[in-house]
Amino acid sequence: MTASGNPVDYESRVRQSFGQQGAMRTLGAELTHVAPGAVDICLDWAEGLTQQHGFLHAGMVSTALDSACGYAGLTLMPAHAAVLTIEFKINLLAPAKGQRFRMEGRVIKPGRTITVAEGRAYAMDRGQEKLVATMGCTLMCVQDREGLSD
Amino acid sequence: MTASGNPVDYESRVRQSFGQQGAMRTLGAELTHVAPGAVDICLDWAEGLTQQHGFLHAGMVSTALDSACGYAGLTLMPAHAAVLTIEFKINLLAPAKGQRFRMEGRVIKPGRTITVAEGRAYAMDRGQEKLVATMGCTLMCVQDREGLSD
Amino acid sequence: MTASGNPVDYESRVRQSFGQQGAMRTLGAELTHVAPGAVDICLDWAEGLTQQHGFLHAGMVSTALDSACGYAGLTLMPAHAAVLTIEFKINLLAPAKGQRFRMEGRVIKPGRTITVAEGRAYAMDRGQEKLVATMGCTLMCVQDREGLSD
Amino acid sequence: MTASGNPVDYESRVRQSFGQQGAMRTLGAELTHVAPGAVDICLDWAEGLTQQHGFLHAGMVSTALDSACGYAGLTLMPAHAAVLTIEFKINLLAPAKGQRFRMEGRVIKPGRTITVAEGRAYAMDRGQEKLVATMGCTLMCVQDREGLSD
Repeated sequence: MTASGNPVDYESRVRQSFGQQGAMRTLGAELTHVAPGAVDICLDWAEGLTQQHGFLHAGMVSTALDSACGYAGLTLMPAHAAVLTIEFKINLLAPAKGQRFRMEGRVIKPGRTITVAEGRAYAMDRGQEKLVATMGCTLMCVQDREGLSD
Repeated sequence: MTASGNPVDYESRVRQSFGQQGAMRTLGAELTHVAPGAVDICLDWAEGLTQQHGFLHAGMVSTALDSACGYAGLTLMPAHAAVLTIEFKINLLAPAKGQRFRMEGRVIKPGRTITVAEGRAYAMDRGQEKLVATMGCTLMCVQDREGLSD
Repeated sequence: MTASGNPVDYESRVRQSFGQQGAMRTLGAELTHVAPGAVDICLDWAEGLTQQHGFLHAGMVSTALDSACGYAGLTLMPAHAAVLTIEFKINLLAPAKGQRFRMEGRVIKPGRTITVAEGRAYAMDRGQEKLVATMGCTLMCVQDREGLSD
Repeated sequence: MTASGNPVDYESRVRQSFGQQGAMRTLGAELTHVAPGAVDICLDWAEGLTQQHGFLHAGMVSTALDSACGYAGLTLMPAHAAVLTIEFKINLLAPAKGQRFRMEGRVIKPGRTITVAEGRAYAMDRGQEKLVATMGCTLMCVQDREGLSD
């Protein structure tokens, strides 16, 4: 897999877009790994992200995983392209119980129009890392569509 | 479809659980409809919920839809049961662009152990309501499992 | 929703493509309804389509539903376009137990590149029709791609 | 991961159930690998399994993948349990073009009631193996439910 442009380009594009997501600030999320086709996002547990049992809400897990998958896709897209999520599916394997969480997004099939990525969510609970969710995600590369930024 | 217990019971159980979800406060979400097998959740656009183009983040759409589907399922479960999401899939049909959003959760197949629900997300943009996402969601009814609240 | 070209065109395109699917002959499937954005496929139970309990195999249900959704999409695409399935998800609500089955494919969001459809599978068992599966399906409209027919 | 009972038991249970699936005979499918939590199924291209461009129909790919995932799950279930597919999602990464196909089913999270598996479909085309589809699959372990075999 080769990234479009040089590494500085794809990483700065990902970081710039990430910085524009209000949702990532709400999650307290950080970009901890950015490579061609691979992005990791980490976040700490916070009361504002919980479901009724005090664990991370499945939707908040999917918010971070969707961004990890989308940005993994964006690293491989042309410089002026935007990435859109067409759909994703998430399986919750265990309650998202922990102090910190790491979300991996990995491209498994890049494409001119359609890119497919997979995500894995890990909970770090008292020093142990545990797989708590898996995502399958379909992304679209959008070019020259003014409406996206209006 | 018949609810377990009387209406006061299922509605108060849903409202109590909803009130314990930190994620719903973060979304500014309200329970606007609670009936057997059917729950609606509404929320306003807020900067803290956005993706990079300023629209509602797909993950935030899924957070509200997942809660709407889960609580639609809970209305039909026994009084002391808890509801867990096993998996969901969301299709993003259009950018979630609007001032306010309404998320519908509807049970299409209740079951003793497994319940299947569907969600629809509508964006209200300058007075027009538009379908922006659909969800398919599998829920599990959990009884007597201490670990959920520890 | 408007079909591309006149009704004769879209219906004949669907019927011609359907006739080229060896899988539909194996299923004994018939096109029983073709309208803009809506296609039904029916088939009878047969021993060669079963899982280990003698019911219709979930994969065979999905084969017919995928074709119903794909052709529902094709009715709304340009005359020389081909339709590809990007992904689908199926929920099995009940064993597919019956003598005959009806699969509905319905477009819920047509698009220039991406079309989203939903499917419903009904089993007709001793005169009763029962919903046994639901599908969410993402389709792509492909034009001018030689490789598809080589 | 440990299988229930000794290896002879789980393998014979899988092979016996596989032999009762009319759909597997229709596909010309063979069980080529059976281990705890891991099952492979192989099949050759046949005209009766095709979509309109002559490639393997996405539904037929999903039929074999669903069985591979289901039997991967069954290897880890108690001796008298039956396995049911609750739902699956498949992403078609490339046309299923080839002379032979290998479907991998792998358990990623076994459970007393719910088991989650992942599938990968590979096409062998002129000596090259290519990943053409991925599946995420939720299975249920069913015990003592008479109705399944009636």
